Amino acid sequence: MARRGEFQLIADLFAPLAAGEAGALGLTDDAAVLDLAAGRKLVVTADAIVEGVHFLPDDPPDLIARKLVRVNLSDLAAMGAVPRALILTCAWPAHRDDAWIERFVGGLRDDVQAFAVPVVGGDTVSTPGPATFTVTALGTVPAESGGLTRRAAAAGCKLAVTGTIGDAALGLLVAQGEVEVATDADRDALVDRYRLPRPRVGVGPRLLGLADACIDISDGLIQDLGHICAASGVGGEIEQHRVPLSDAARRLVEVRPDLWQTVLSGGDDYELLCAYREEREDAVLAAAAAEGVPLTPIGRLRRGEGVRVLGYDGHPLQIAKGGFSHF
Amino acid sequence: MARRGEFQLIADLFAPLAAGEAGALGLTDDAAVLDLAAGRKLVVTADAIVEGVHFLPDDPPDLIARKLVRVNLSDLAAMGAVPRALILTCAWPAHRDDAWIERFVGGLRDDVQAFAVPVVGGDTVSTPGPATFTVTALGTVPAESGGLTRRAAAAGCKLAVTGTIGDAALGLLVAQGEVEVATDADRDALVDRYRLPRPRVGVGPRLLGLADACIDISDGLIQDLGHICAASGVGGEIEQHRVPLSDAARRLVEVRPDLWQTVLSGGDDYELLCAYREEREDAVLAAAAAEGVPLTPIGRLRRGEGVRVLGYDGHPLQIAKGGFSHF
Repeated sequence: MARRGEFQLIADLFAPLAAGEAGALGLTDDAAVLDLAAGRKLVVTADAIVEGVHFLPDDPPDLIARKLVRVNLSDLAAMGAVPRALILTCAWPAHRDDAWIERFVGGLRDDVQAFAVPVVGGDTVSTPGPATFTVTALGTVPAESGGLTRRAAAAGCKLAVTGTIGDAALGLLVAQGEVEVATDADRDALVDRYRLPRPRVGVGPRLLGLADACIDISDGLIQDLGHICAASGVGGEIEQHRVPLSDAARRLVEVRPDLWQTVLSGGDDYELLCAYREEREDAVLAAAAAEGVPLTPIGRLRRGEGVRVLGYDGHPLQIAKGGFSHF
Repeated sequence: MARRGEFQLIADLFAPLAAGEAGALGLTDDAAVLDLAAGRKLVVTADAIVEGVHFLPDDPPDLIARKLVRVNLSDLAAMGAVPRALILTCAWPAHRDDAWIERFVGGLRDDVQAFAVPVVGGDTVSTPGPATFTVTALGTVPAESGGLTRRAAAAGCKLAVTGTIGDAALGLLVAQGEVEVATDADRDALVDRYRLPRPRVGVGPRLLGLADACIDISDGLIQDLGHICAASGVGGEIEQHRVPLSDAARRLVEVRPDLWQTVLSGGDDYELLCAYREEREDAVLAAAAAEGVPLTPIGRLRRGEGVRVLGYDGHPLQIAKGGFSHF
């Protein structure tokens, strides 16, 4: 198998991902030097993914790269941050040849362009184990803001989510052949949501100063609402009938109501869940609408602790599984 | 084997590494929110290390962690940057139990304190492969500076290095039993330099505005000088007799002159190599002296390209191996 050396790989494939960012120094120096716009604070997040754990050996390499970028951009969005730069480290196993690496980098390139965020540095090493990638994403918020955290919500706040919930978790089951869907279109719609998150990079920064708390739904709606509740010292209550479903998901749960558990506690939605004071609801809805993103009120925070889901009959559902813990 | 879950691991072991940095949000949020001091630019670097490639399974876990931190701090120093924060991602194999992880984190804690730089975020995942760690290090330089790059040196600049050269590469050979040393003290001195780099975090920022180019010696003196030469479009010439050696290294090359090649082209010194105009030599030497660090002039940049080493007889040496490529 043909394989470029480390320096050649960086020069040929990664340096173009830094184009337009002079401070990346063409990825040839010890570090990048970045200007933040005046009056901004830095927001930093990171994710690691491992072949066989977070993606499968046969997954398309471009989608692996794009998902990794998007998961990080979703974390920035949840903090209300505008993306500024990405740092990528890659541990490549010997069995991945140049063609695979080029497809991986092609996916990166697509999203570097789509989200207008350069790769400004990183590291490239070999590994005897599975391919392992990390992205550290840098973003900014106005200096007068502390960012949109999980901890500043209060009892009485309303809860709302962007987009639709559960598609990605259902899509995974469909892709694995564990669930049948009626049409190819529904199948594709769900699997696509699993494969390629749509981080709400436009909505997050608009919620700064409007929402009191925000999180991106990566571990599942119930578990991530639980994170806001724990951090803010409150309980949460959502109404099942208000949880927004895509058409494909709705058709599926109509015939398989047991899959509601997947919808409510499955992960990988990468929608935003925010808590805000009721008097700000119009402004919060308008902020999402300005980005063309649906935002749906689904419940409230209340005194106490824990998360309760009221079913269609108004009684609390029993949720067997709170979500997904990665470790 | 007892193993904490992901959230417990973060709360118990990693959150204390964020102590004193309110913007780390106790490592419980989607991202950290950091103030940069007014009038500073951000400097970003990253390194990944893999068990079996960059460290051995039996290496002490605290030293693995400290080396990873220090390699990154060395890159910041080479840019003239003051450390600001670390982001750590860990992929742990199942055979590493809590005791190993605690020792790893203990090493981190030592260096977080020694260098006064908090861990503000990261990720923790499991892997079926070798332990894999990455650190992204954030630092700052004054906004009016572009940082200390490799590319701004010119023919005529003098070259100088901090500390002593070759100890770490000799220490690796000694640790592997490939080279005999006369005394235990010499053995310990060399092996210690291999195990635990001393990044020149104090000197780097003091060279800003004085040196024209700088790099930390990680790939070996000759190869890293070659990086400055290539980036600045010049050639480099160093004089063997000026290259500063530790007492232990000097005693070793006296009986094994063939090991000069290891000294000149071995890696892992993590000393700084800088290029500066001759009229600034007093100021450059004073900057290092203010940190109590020896800085030794070893040669010059000249028109042309490539790196030449003049031996004790004044004639160029033949260097068989330019250094070490990681990939």
